[in-house]
Formats: sequence, structure tokens, C-alpha cells
Amino acid sequence: MQVAYTPAEIAAIVGAVRTTGTTALKIRDIASLALAAPGDLSFLGNAKYRAQVPDCTATVILLPADYAGEPRPDQVFLYVENPSVALARLCARIEQALWPKPAAGIHPSAVVAASATIDPTAHVGPLCVIEPGVHVGAGSVLQASVFVGQDARIGEGCWVMPGVVIAATCSLGNRVRLQPGVIIGSDGFGYEFVQGRHEKIPQIGTVVIEDDVEIGANSTIDRARFSRTRVGEGTKVDNLVQIAHNVVIGKHCILCSQVGISGSTTLEDYVVLGGQAGVGGHITLGKGTKAGGQTGIAYTTEPGSYLNGTPAIPYLLERRLQILHQRLPDLFKRVEILEKGLEKSSR
Amino acid sequence: MQVAYTPAEIAAIVGAVRTTGTTALKIRDIASLALAAPGDLSFLGNAKYRAQVPDCTATVILLPADYAGEPRPDQVFLYVENPSVALARLCARIEQALWPKPAAGIHPSAVVAASATIDPTAHVGPLCVIEPGVHVGAGSVLQASVFVGQDARIGEGCWVMPGVVIAATCSLGNRVRLQPGVIIGSDGFGYEFVQGRHEKIPQIGTVVIEDDVEIGANSTIDRARFSRTRVGEGTKVDNLVQIAHNVVIGKHCILCSQVGISGSTTLEDYVVLGGQAGVGGHITLGKGTKAGGQTGIAYTTEPGSYLNGTPAIPYLLERRLQILHQRLPDLFKRVEILEKGLEKSSR
Amino acid sequence: MQVAYTPAEIAAIVGAVRTTGTTALKIRDIASLALAAPGDLSFLGNAKYRAQVPDCTATVILLPADYAGEPRPDQVFLYVENPSVALARLCARIEQALWPKPAAGIHPSAVVAASATIDPTAHVGPLCVIEPGVHVGAGSVLQASVFVGQDARIGEGCWVMPGVVIAATCSLGNRVRLQPGVIIGSDGFGYEFVQGRHEKIPQIGTVVIEDDVEIGANSTIDRARFSRTRVGEGTKVDNLVQIAHNVVIGKHCILCSQVGISGSTTLEDYVVLGGQAGVGGHITLGKGTKAGGQTGIAYTTEPGSYLNGTPAIPYLLERRLQILHQRLPDLFKRVEILEKGLEKSSR
Repeated sequence: MQVAYTPAEIAAIVGAVRTTGTTALKIRDIASLALAAPGDLSFLGNAKYRAQVPDCTATVILLPADYAGEPRPDQVFLYVENPSVALARLCARIEQALWPKPAAGIHPSAVVAASATIDPTAHVGPLCVIEPGVHVGAGSVLQASVFVGQDARIGEGCWVMPGVVIAATCSLGNRVRLQPGVIIGSDGFGYEFVQGRHEKIPQIGTVVIEDDVEIGANSTIDRARFSRTRVGEGTKVDNLVQIAHNVVIGKHCILCSQVGISGSTTLEDYVVLGGQAGVGGHITLGKGTKAGGQTGIAYTTEPGSYLNGTPAIPYLLERRLQILHQRLPDLFKRVEILEKGLEKSSR
Repeated sequence: MQVAYTPAEIAAIVGAVRTTGTTALKIRDIASLALAAPGDLSFLGNAKYRAQVPDCTATVILLPADYAGEPRPDQVFLYVENPSVALARLCARIEQALWPKPAAGIHPSAVVAASATIDPTAHVGPLCVIEPGVHVGAGSVLQASVFVGQDARIGEGCWVMPGVVIAATCSLGNRVRLQPGVIIGSDGFGYEFVQGRHEKIPQIGTVVIEDDVEIGANSTIDRARFSRTRVGEGTKVDNLVQIAHNVVIGKHCILCSQVGISGSTTLEDYVVLGGQAGVGGHITLGKGTKAGGQTGIAYTTEPGSYLNGTPAIPYLLERRLQILHQRLPDLFKRVEILEKGLEKSSR
Repeated sequence: MQVAYTPAEIAAIVGAVRTTGTTALKIRDIASLALAAPGDLSFLGNAKYRAQVPDCTATVILLPADYAGEPRPDQVFLYVENPSVALARLCARIEQALWPKPAAGIHPSAVVAASATIDPTAHVGPLCVIEPGVHVGAGSVLQASVFVGQDARIGEGCWVMPGVVIAATCSLGNRVRLQPGVIIGSDGFGYEFVQGRHEKIPQIGTVVIEDDVEIGANSTIDRARFSRTRVGEGTKVDNLVQIAHNVVIGKHCILCSQVGISGSTTLEDYVVLGGQAGVGGHITLGKGTKAGGQTGIAYTTEPGSYLNGTPAIPYLLERRLQILHQRLPDLFKRVEILEKGLEKSSR
């Protein structure tokens, strides 16, 4: 970290109810109890690590109010109501200090079409390209080298990181956060097989990203064949995820890294997919469906399903089958013994 | 969509044989019969949806000539020979209207080496970088922020979208379409293990993309160790696909999203790989080989193979084994019963 | 290739001990014995291909000193101690000729903050963005359109290819090579589920890439929640790989394409993961652990483990289980026969 705080400053930020110990050191980093060293802040976020506190040499430790024990020399204990909440509050403060929101305005190296409307409180960073008819809303930040295609629309308070491409006519809601290298609005993958060749089906739809969505680095979201590919409010998408054309994702879903969703599939609200899971086309995952990493889902699921494996089956059944699968050598032996036994008994 | 058509304009575009009904509304979007609303165009592409037509409130519906029924007030029926073909014709027209080909010329913000030859009918958009010795052919479009490395060659009528990297000496044929973020010509992944370290093997080959190929967003194609990595004519590659060094892909193949092909493997013509399928190195997939999503192929396949699963086996066998796998709990019980029965009978 | 050498020049580069044959042709490409044509150089790298030499029409062939046989007309045999080493030496020379290191200096189109320190021997190419507080070390090359966020640090002799994003505060050691489109320092994927919504956990840590690391095209490495995500010295990462927040990767590991590593997991030194393998969070892969393609690892592994399958189990056991799995139809039949036999014998 490029910031430094005194224990007193941290006590104020986290709202400490009590302080013991003294130090002249400043805090420059955060680490777990097991790894922290002088100059670090650590925290007792989970009671099961309580025994690690006496051996921890962090300069400041956030502790629950009921923690009994004395700090080392040159160490400060800060007692708070909830160390995890206190840490989150501190981290949010550090985040603002590390990466303050850039000033409003358009960098002179950006290439901005005359017909684009950029809110005066928005920031368009260096070497961005903004095509005709684009709208960028209040307080939004296009950090650097962002491409926004014609007639695309970016809401308020969005943060678009370097190298992102938002293709023509796509739209972002408010407070959308796109990590570097995200592609919104690439063509859907659609062809007709005609006389031995794949003829392209025009992809003239668009992509709608609703409020408070976050998309991870280098993920790709294709535009619809027609109408809209949609990512619902509050949904969070990790890195290198593929969302195909005409997919509709509900609200508050979680898609872990390298997930792939095939075309025209619907995810209802609160779906959670583990890393590298794959979902077939033209199906619906019912509300709250959960699937483990690398799961392959080819059929519509009931709300609340919890699945694993390829092909996806209920989680507990899949685990039971895995155990039986690993007992196959034993089963083959048992059948062989039975065959010999039957042979003998029938002689 | 950012375009609007009257029903009469649409009738002309699709070549309607007959029209019934009237409306003052213009058409601004396309939707399925189930989802369409006033202002939309819909279509009866498949006879099985015929019963949805009377309830559909689309302003214009494309119908087969034999459809019997009357439009609602403020609704127009257009009768055509084949509604799907009519829709494709309309979409192609809309695509041209939405995204007309940019004018020829080099944007002043592009950085173009003096020794590059850019056809006067080509378009080099804002903030592109064109290194020495590059050739860009007639009518090709480099949309924005495209990097073309030294001595690379782009054919005629190509469309290269924002953020694409075409590294040194690689070549594109004619009418190649690269979606945003594609990387052509990154180094192959080759190392020698020498005295506990991985020493890099120079990757001095190149990549050849033949005519009419399309590559999806953020896909990566490595240059050869020496000679060429090749993607054959008419092959279509989806998003986030990895093609390793010295891979040779035949003509008219389909590689769905997140497929990975390991080094020096050959795909003969008309191979189709489902999403997230993985193919090992130094093997050949015979002509027309098909594999389901998430399949893992480690061995050379016969022409016409249809595979599924990891390790890949014939599709029907894999499905049968999956069914038996799910009957393992029953099988274990049956063997237990047999063991008890045999014990009893041998007493 | 864009270079051409005479046989005499090649003999000098590779240190040939003897030469037979003559030709007026220059060498413009390299190919295997089976594929080489006039104008190519080929090589007998493995004794098992010895029978291919007489039929090979390459203009120059690198041969071991003990090879007996005569060149064709217009063909030159170069005898060397070790043809593979000779080829590597030639390729390294060709690489330098093809892609000489660009001259030191900052391209006028780059946007470089006044407070950044760029070593005078470094190269900052066209349309790069360098934010305040960045350091770029001696001899490093930022090729084009590279983004380096505030206070990031790039060591000496690095090569950063077009379209790479190195986010704020991240650091590269020396001789690090980043292929195009790599993202270093995107936010980790961390949320708290509060009242039906996923609240973002600030990701205020950083990423440390140690010396001699290479990262493949469009791979993504997330910054830590706090402290550091780390990639150890000499580790090589292929294309489209995901490394999540707080992952610690040891020295000299190999991560093949499309691998995904979940958060807070540790890979000890010399781990090797096949393509599309997935590793769960908060576990440790012991030193030298190897896993096949598409393996899914959810638990900590012992040093030297060799795993395959999902869930990952020892390689040989997994192969044995696969064979038994494919014999399930037979097993079901055998059990049925046993059941009939027992029924009969108990009558």
C-alpha cells in the first residue's frame, strides 16, 4: 500500500471503543494474524484464530471487546464491536486514498465525437474513443483506452477500467463497474449452414447491463441476435466469463471465473455458478440454482437446485456416486468372487 | 435498435406478397411472438408457434402465405414466402443501417509507419498502431485501437474490431472478421527444462488466417514455433477460445466458446467442438468430428466421430455409461443381496 | 519469415563441423523433415526420423555428425554436434533479426505522467498510458497501447506487449514477459451477502510478479484483498489463465492454457497444471504436484502428487477407474446373470 496511518488515525476510522499499548510505528499494510509483521495491521475476525494473537507481531491488532490479553511492547490493541466490519471500514477508506476518483473532464488525447453527450461531472481518460451519439452519465469514469461505440449509453457513477470495449447501442445502468479488458456487445455466434458453408446471421440486438453489476477482467458478453442480452441488477461476474447472445441473467447472481453460458439461456435471480461451470443453450436455471465448479448443465433446473458434475445432477447424489465410482475395483472383485462361488455351489 | 421503419418500407425490403391491416406506428425492434409488444416486428418462423399469433401484439408480423387469420386493430400482417428468410433479409438491412461501413481513410490519431501500405479504400480508425511493412487491403476496416505488428498483412474486406492485436508477420485473408480483443500471434507456450528452470524456446513462426474466418472476442491464437499456425477458410471461432502454436485447423470448422486446442494438433475440415471442450496436443481430429461441451479429447479421432465426455468416447456409449453410473447405488445393493443370498444358499 | 540466410551463414551461426553439397538458394523458412520444401531448412532432431532424410527436399538439413548419406543436387547437409541445440541457436538469431529491440525513448503519442520515472534505456511505445508515480526500469519495452496504473513498478529488461493493463501499485520483477492483452491487478472477486445483495469487499492489495515470469495472452491476475497476489520466479503461464486474489504461486511452475486458480490458494514450486484444470480456493498444492488437463482439484495435495479427473485423484487410479467405468455395461450383465443363476440354484 502507498498509504500510512497512525494507530490513533485507525482508531478514529474504525470507531475503536478502547485502546491499549503504544507504538511510534505507522501502519503500511494489512496481513492475517499468521503472516503479519511489524508495520502491519491484523485482526481477529474469527474466534478460532484467538490462539494466534499472542504470537502475532503486527503493530496494530483489531480485537473484539471481550478479548483478554496484553499487547507486546511497540504494539497497539484496538477493541471494536466487530473486527471484520471494522476492517471493511478501514479498507474502504484506504481504497479511496489509494485510488481517488479522477477529476471531471475529458483528457485532450481522447477522441470524442461531437454528437456524444458527456456529463460535465464525468471523467473521460486518456486515449478513450467515444463514437457519435454516445451518452456518458453523471460521475462516471472511463479510465483510459476505453472504446464506446455509437449510440451506446453509460449511466451514472459507473467505473470503466482500461481497455474495455462497449460496442454500439449497448447500455450500462448506474454504478456499473467493468474491470479491464471486458468486451460488451461483440457479435453473437450464429450461422446458418448453407451449401457447405457457415453463413453469418446478422446480430442486430444489443446488451443491457443493469444497475450495480460488476464484470470481471477480459469477460465477454455478446449482443443479441435481436432484442437484448441482459445482465440483471446487482449480479457479479468474475474474470474470463462468456455470456452468449440472448442470454438473460436475473438479479444478484454470482458467476465465478471462466463460466460459460450458451445462447438464449435464462438464469433466474440469485443463481450461483462455480468456476468453469458450463450451461447449455435455450434452458432456464430456476431461482437460486447453485452449481459447483466445472459442472455441466444441459437441462432446465428447478428453483433451489444444488448441482454438481457433468452431466449435472443433485449435489449429494453426485458425491455419493463419486464415492461408489472409486469403489469400482472392489465391486468388480466382489462380482468375480460371486461368480466363482456360484459356479462352485452349482457344481 | 436506433432505426425505424414503416410497415410499407418493411414490406418492400422483405418482398411481401400480400399485406393486411393498418397502423401509424413505426417498427423499432424485433421480438419473438411471445415477447413482442406494440412497436415491434415479430415472425412465425416455425409452424409450432402458430397458436401464439392471435395473442401477439407486435405491430407487424411476418407470416407464411397460407396463414389464416386477421390482424388486430393497429396491426399489420405481411405475408411472405418464408418468414425466416424474410427476417434474415430485414436484419441484414438493419445491420447496414445501424453500422454503415466507415469512410475510407486514416484517422489523424492513428500511428502509421511510413513503410506501411494502406489501400486508399481501407479505413484505419482512431488510435490504431500500424508498424513498418504492414499491408492493409482494399475495403478493410480497422475500427479503433487496433495494433498491427511489423510486416503483418491484412487482406481485402476484413473487419477488425476495437482492441484487436495482430502481431508481427501474421496474415489475414479476405473478409476476415475479428471481434474485439482478439490476439493473433502471441508467442507459443514452449520451454525447455534446463537445470531446474524453464528456458524459452523462440517462437519465430507466424499465424495464417484464411478467407471468411471469424474469430470471437478475446480469443487467442499463438504463432508457430516455426512455420505456421493456420485457421482454414470459412472456419468460425467463438469467444475466449485458445488455439496453441502450430495448430492447423481445416475449413468450415465450428469452435464454440472457451474451447482449447493444444499445440501441433490438426483439425480436419468440418470439425465441430462444443463449448469448453479441450483437445490434447499432437493429434488429429478426423474430418467432421463432433464433440459435446466440456469433452476432453486426448487421442486422434476417425472422420465422422461423435464424441462426449472426458476422456472422450463415442457419444451414445458415453450417454449409456452415464445412465449406468447413476444406477451404481442400485448395483451395489444388488451385489450385497447376491452376497447374502450366496452365503445362505451355501450354508 | 522475413529473413533469408545462405547455407554458409547458417553454418557459421550453428557452428557446423562439416558441410556437404551446394546450392544457390537462400533459406527463408524452417520445416519438419516431412513437410520441408526447397528454400526451407530442416533438421534431424530425433533418430527415429532418420529414414525421412533421403526423401526430404529441404535446401539445408542439420544432421548429427554420424549421419551417413549424400545430399541431393541443390541441397546442403550441415553436420553439427546436436541438431536440436543448433536449431535453437539459429531460431534465437532469427528472433533477434525479426524483432529487434526497439530503440530507447518515449513515443510522442504516449501519455506519460510527469511524476513517472522512465529509465532512459527503456522504450515506451505509441499510445501507452503511464500514470503518476510509475517506475519503468532499464531496458524494459512497453510495446504499444500499454496501460500502467499509478505507483506500479516495472523492473529491468521486461517486455510488455500491446494492450496489456498493469493496474495501480502492481509490480513486475526483471525480465518479465507479458503477452498481449494480459491484465495484472484487476479487482479480486469478493462480496459480502447483506440483505439480499452482494456488497463489494474493497480489494486494496496488489500483485507481485517475480523475475523471469512469462504470462500468456489475455490471462488475468487479480490483486489481493489485502497484501499480495504473487507469481514466483521463473513461472510460466499460458493464455487465458485466471489467477484469483491472494493466490501465491511458487517458482518454476507451469500453468497451461485456460487454467483457473481460486482465491487464497498456494502452489508450491514446480507445480504443473494441464490445460483447463481448475483449482479450488484456500488450499495448497504441494511441491511438484502435477495434474492432467481438465482436472478439478478441491483439496490440498502432497508434494509430488500426480492427479487426474474431477474430483482429482491419483493419476493411475483415475485411469484404472476410467477403464472399469467403460466396463459397466458388462458388469451390469454379469450381475444380472448372477441373479438369475442364484434364483435357479435356490429353487
